Amino acid sequence: MAITITAFANSLDQGRGLARDMIVRWALEEAGQPYRERLIPWADFKKPAHRQRNPFGQIPTYEEGDLILFESGAIVLHVAERFKGLFPVDANARARAIMWMFAAVSDVEPVIVQMEVSEYMESDKSWNAERAPLVADRARGRLADLAARLGGAAWLDGDFSAADVLMVQALRRLEGQAPLTEFPSLVAYVERGKARPAFKRAFAAQRAAYEATKAAS
Amino acid sequence: MAITITAFANSLDQGRGLARDMIVRWALEEAGQPYRERLIPWADFKKPAHRQRNPFGQIPTYEEGDLILFESGAIVLHVAERFKGLFPVDANARARAIMWMFAAVSDVEPVIVQMEVSEYMESDKSWNAERAPLVADRARGRLADLAARLGGAAWLDGDFSAADVLMVQALRRLEGQAPLTEFPSLVAYVERGKARPAFKRAFAAQRAAYEATKAAS
Repeated sequence: MAITITAFANSLDQGRGLARDMIVRWALEEAGQPYRERLIPWADFKKPAHRQRNPFGQIPTYEEGDLILFESGAIVLHVAERFKGLFPVDANARARAIMWMFAAVSDVEPVIVQMEVSEYMESDKSWNAERAPLVADRARGRLADLAARLGGAAWLDGDFSAADVLMVQALRRLEGQAPLTEFPSLVAYVERGKARPAFKRAFAAQRAAYEATKAAS
Repeated sequence: MAITITAFANSLDQGRGLARDMIVRWALEEAGQPYRERLIPWADFKKPAHRQRNPFGQIPTYEEGDLILFESGAIVLHVAERFKGLFPVDANARARAIMWMFAAVSDVEPVIVQMEVSEYMESDKSWNAERAPLVADRARGRLADLAARLGGAAWLDGDFSAADVLMVQALRRLEGQAPLTEFPSLVAYVERGKARPAFKRAFAAQRAAYEATKAAS
């Protein structure tokens, strides 16, 4: 059955592959599965047509036959269960991969998103300069815990898995910035993710979508 | 194999069942599985012994034979796959239940946690009175989306599932408070969750742990 995903037609990240469609593209590339794109203009995400797919009016979504999914973590989990290449075979190792998927989306990404909220949504506030370091410190603490557990390992738990797709993409939101740059092992971890051929194909695809929209506008 | 979970010996919520061990207790009760408790004093969560179980120094964790898991979402998913009672049989319905699990932990709970951060960690700041309504508005928007999708349904997607355990517990953090109280259908949804016998057993167990610690101190 054909797979269709939604993505921004004109992503605010200007093709840097930080929007969450990149997570699903990367997972599908790791699994060797082709997919179609449904590109949605910035103005249309919160409209009823897209809210039918995702009640929160976000991308990505995933359509495959009768199944419509939102939540990039859940989509990656579905892809990892349906196709080879993203989950270990051993049942306990698979449970731990899922554990790290939840850690990425509920422990690591939220503290980074709060830095973005501070930077983009509260930059006009008189108190933002005082508050921003508090927010960065919360992210710093979480990254320190992650770096301590990762140690010198290549990936979160044994071989590369779906969890690394989610964690690398969460960390990429801070690429080139503190506090990520204070943890060389996490910077190297992100680079290992980016060096994978599947990442590169996914990155090129999302960039092509962005460039095509730009050229047409 | 015996299941052991960790929980706070002296939860800051004073036995209101808002700490995340409640999520796992409830899921295990729905699945009809007995478990042992490892109660950890407040002072010991961030110490190395517990960080071996969870690198972020949080509860709950789940131990079953050689398997050690953290992340309440991942633990509930594991319990739901291993035992009956928490996932639908139909594959697409199961994928949607997992989608709602991710929605609970990465879309709904974080905006509520930000209200708690504002209330408990930033209440001494001169700007907190100005900022708190912005934070509440972000939660309000997410709850409005959720209420719109839930409509008049009893549960998130068909029958009760693991996703409802996570979503009800996320919403309970706002029990009796705005903006949750502005959405009667969500308040009723929370009450439906609390009326389940498995919820009541889990609630009683976490309350008993809290009371026992209090009596001993």
